[in-house]
Amino acid sequence: MTTITAKPLTPQAFAPFGTVIARRPEPDVMINQGLCGRHHALALADISDGATGISLFDAEPRSLPYRLDMVERHPLGSQAFIPMSETGFLVIVAPDDEGRPGAPLAFLTRPGEGIQIARNTWHGVLTPLAPPGLFAVIDRIGDGPNLEEHWFDRPYTVTAK
Amino acid sequence: MTTITAKPLTPQAFAPFGTVIARRPEPDVMINQGLCGRHHALALADISDGATGISLFDAEPRSLPYRLDMVERHPLGSQAFIPMSETGFLVIVAPDDEGRPGAPLAFLTRPGEGIQIARNTWHGVLTPLAPPGLFAVIDRIGDGPNLEEHWFDRPYTVTAK
Repeated sequence: MTTITAKPLTPQAFAPFGTVIARRPEPDVMINQGLCGRHHALALADISDGATGISLFDAEPRSLPYRLDMVERHPLGSQAFIPMSETGFLVIVAPDDEGRPGAPLAFLTRPGEGIQIARNTWHGVLTPLAPPGLFAVIDRIGDGPNLEEHWFDRPYTVTAK
Repeated sequence: MTTITAKPLTPQAFAPFGTVIARRPEPDVMINQGLCGRHHALALADISDGATGISLFDAEPRSLPYRLDMVERHPLGSQAFIPMSETGFLVIVAPDDEGRPGAPLAFLTRPGEGIQIARNTWHGVLTPLAPPGLFAVIDRIGDGPNLEEHWFDRPYTVTAK
């Protein structure tokens, strides 16, 4: 089985696949009488039609090494994942190769970081690595086919250093 | 100074002011091969124009009793607050009374809950009660006047039982 080593998430490495939702070195603006730093517009929802909604995902924590069987993508909208706990999680993405996923990449977020997966970008399912596995998800709410799955003939193993 | 006693947040009590973003008793659907419960479309962004964006707010924790000097509202869009830690926070809202805020109400969320303040609804600024005070905020990104503040002639004191 091919092994993928998860790397720390950086905005640069993740840019082809989406956006890291993390504090900038300094807030863009201080609000609320100086008691709150606003890190402004870190990601914008990219929704084709329908509504932009907030759902909660309550996912079972996984452990490494992780067996990657499949990736999926959402042609009609971006999908952001915001952890509701101070924990990092595993993010798996893959470039598109003529309608199928190419070689996957894996990243580890740090506590206090979320991500937005770009519209129509191959990615693994939500994989928390610690409890509680509770995330807010900002994505498209609407009818129509917004899920494409790809199951790998040969699964991958994801590890970390 | 008039005292307001914060009550536990419930969807019913909060309904005139917005939406509680919390897990339902059962998920709407199990996804990801049964490993993730989706609590679907708990809130929908209500944005007049411009984009729907995700920002991070890094707010200083407050303590009770809390002195409430002002409330604000955003005429052009809803604003959702998602805690990125397993902590509750203080939520203050007020009905509108001919263009000015009426008597404020205060609520305490539980860990694992977020809220969406409805468009043009009077509310207090973000008031975490414990560190780290880090929240994802889903609101309107765009130009134009989207902030109205009201400073009270006589501040309120917010306590909890």
